[in-house]
Amino acid sequence: MEMLNEQQLLEQAAGRGAVLKGGRIVLYAGANLPSLEAQQAYSPGLSAYPAMGPSFAKEQPDTDGVSGLELAVSQRICGLFGAQWAEPRLPSCTIANLAVFHAFSQPGDLLLAPAAAHGGHLSQRRGGTPSLAGLRVEELPFDTRHCCLDAPRAAELVRERRPALVMLGRSVIIKPDDIEPVVAAAREVGAKSIFDASHVSGLIAGGTFPNPLALGVDVLTSSTYKTLPGRPHSLIAGRHPADGKRLAQLIDGALLANYDAGRLPSLLLTLREVQANGKAYAERVCANAQALAQALRQCGVTVIAPMAGEAFTHQILIPMAAEVPAAMAMAAMERHGILLGTCADPTTPGGYALRVGTQFITTQGQAQDLGSIAQRLAGALRPSAAGRMALA
Amino acid sequence: MEMLNEQQLLEQAAGRGAVLKGGRIVLYAGANLPSLEAQQAYSPGLSAYPAMGPSFAKEQPDTDGVSGLELAVSQRICGLFGAQWAEPRLPSCTIANLAVFHAFSQPGDLLLAPAAAHGGHLSQRRGGTPSLAGLRVEELPFDTRHCCLDAPRAAELVRERRPALVMLGRSVIIKPDDIEPVVAAAREVGAKSIFDASHVSGLIAGGTFPNPLALGVDVLTSSTYKTLPGRPHSLIAGRHPADGKRLAQLIDGALLANYDAGRLPSLLLTLREVQANGKAYAERVCANAQALAQALRQCGVTVIAPMAGEAFTHQILIPMAAEVPAAMAMAAMERHGILLGTCADPTTPGGYALRVGTQFITTQGQAQDLGSIAQRLAGALRPSAAGRMALA
Repeated sequence: MEMLNEQQLLEQAAGRGAVLKGGRIVLYAGANLPSLEAQQAYSPGLSAYPAMGPSFAKEQPDTDGVSGLELAVSQRICGLFGAQWAEPRLPSCTIANLAVFHAFSQPGDLLLAPAAAHGGHLSQRRGGTPSLAGLRVEELPFDTRHCCLDAPRAAELVRERRPALVMLGRSVIIKPDDIEPVVAAAREVGAKSIFDASHVSGLIAGGTFPNPLALGVDVLTSSTYKTLPGRPHSLIAGRHPADGKRLAQLIDGALLANYDAGRLPSLLLTLREVQANGKAYAERVCANAQALAQALRQCGVTVIAPMAGEAFTHQILIPMAAEVPAAMAMAAMERHGILLGTCADPTTPGGYALRVGTQFITTQGQAQDLGSIAQRLAGALRPSAAGRMALA
Repeated sequence: MEMLNEQQLLEQAAGRGAVLKGGRIVLYAGANLPSLEAQQAYSPGLSAYPAMGPSFAKEQPDTDGVSGLELAVSQRICGLFGAQWAEPRLPSCTIANLAVFHAFSQPGDLLLAPAAAHGGHLSQRRGGTPSLAGLRVEELPFDTRHCCLDAPRAAELVRERRPALVMLGRSVIIKPDDIEPVVAAAREVGAKSIFDASHVSGLIAGGTFPNPLALGVDVLTSSTYKTLPGRPHSLIAGRHPADGKRLAQLIDGALLANYDAGRLPSLLLTLREVQANGKAYAERVCANAQALAQALRQCGVTVIAPMAGEAFTHQILIPMAAEVPAAMAMAAMERHGILLGTCADPTTPGGYALRVGTQFITTQGQAQDLGSIAQRLAGALRPSAAGRMALA
């Protein structure tokens, strides 16, 4: 590998947006590029000077501009997700999940969370971020056959184990789970229910994915650069104003001193765009996932996707043969100009899959010809044993 | 208070840099504006697509550009601070301190840290960030007469209490502490010593403040928008490569999934600028603090500053009378066009002070006429009892 010098690295960074738009097919399911307007709205002047503490009660003078933006962003979040409160300041959803753990549990408490094998993210799962908050973690049951949360058994487990927290949502999520029974059980035992919507928040805002808050979830967390097409940041939203106060108190007292308020204008613009165009966008993203699954199947590629009549998200999966190392599969796709990631195959213990997302190509208008994208993918693959794919 | 609508808030945000440069005298000690080149180097394209895990061993394909920048930034940090390793990915020094606590201690361990009354920051002190890591906190002794760490008693306390961690550095720091005896004691008892250089990292890089790593400290943490004139972010640097690996493991496994790599080009440029001009800048910042202290005294304003022969930082303090609420003092200064903060007066239990910093006006070239800035400050103040100041 040739090492670039600093000047070359800086030039490459400046040109990276154009490369992602034109030189690659980005099928990575957790990526997006904000609108040019949102990109350019970053305010170095707001970043330069701190604004610590609650809106309009900040430690520093002359910070009403930041407070006003915090309020405006929070109102947009509440509007998009039907929430009673929102927290717009944390830099990533992993930090947001950590804040929620600290605010609503004590070390030693029990968290029920998705397993890594089923798409549980490191910020949700056993051995990851929950361990920083001292939580014990047990895994939520999963329906491998239907590739979704096993809701009846999960509800049973909640009643039996009586956890402090139940974490729903996953980073591998090809269709909505039936979360209502689990949320009802959580409420019954006094557990706080959290939905990490990092992957699907743009679909929730656009109405193609059921809104967890409307289904009774207490707290929704999300990153902002996947199906919600902004720059990396987080949002938190919830049902009970008292929860919002408790979380803000934790954040102000221990997790955040100052933060980079210069990002708020970009986030506000992204949220406005979602309010204006989010429904059409979410519908296109999901329709594109469905069309891509169909086109891939027509090319002889096995696809894990929702069944007839079920709702799609932005994700579909391509199960891979065990003899192809995941890194080699990604590298082969990269040589074909396709950027994507791999994940544990939630339907097959020990197996893995290519995780394919349509949100980026939909934003970039590259999805007109899904057939040729499918052919490009299919050209790099060949059928292997047991309906899994190997490299061509 | 008139509430601005979204469009007005966005316009105000876009114009905020110009306001800070021209319309205000920013004497807030924890603020800075990066160079225009560094501001413009933000790369939305790098932010758009994740790059998780160690440099050049990332989960995502086509991420060598991010890895190269991580390496380049780390090398610059190591060069500036004489470090053996660096961690360039965390979004703020509060998060950096949290990461260090988790990496190098267990819940229930003892941390010795500066008290709030002496300038201990919420990310360092009892009741703040250390509580998230389950640490017990005891306070380091302070020499109120000389306004610095009481080094002999602190070293004694380290030997007596045998903590897991010793946190040095403060957010109120008018001159260097004599940290060597404390660091030696920490090493003796097997405690990890940390120096939070958020306020003085630009002075360390510029050579006007003793380098804690050269004095034996294990880990240095810092934010990047105070005397180090970048945008809000953090840096961590250390002496022992094994510590760097341990910290990275914690970060990769539990605290960070993706992060906003689009910030790296800005940080790299800031670090290059510091390497090129940091010595002259640090000398000007400290000389300006000394000159401002002298000018204020000539105007009849009491100042807490280093004594003859002692080194200045960017900070000087103006002790305020108890009958003036801190918020009222800040608001009065704001009406005079001066933005600054208040802090506990470390020399006077229960008292508070205006904390004045020269790093922002030095960057902006507003420090040519320190006399008129002193007069503007003095015009808003009048002497009160016991050498403290009240509002004019």
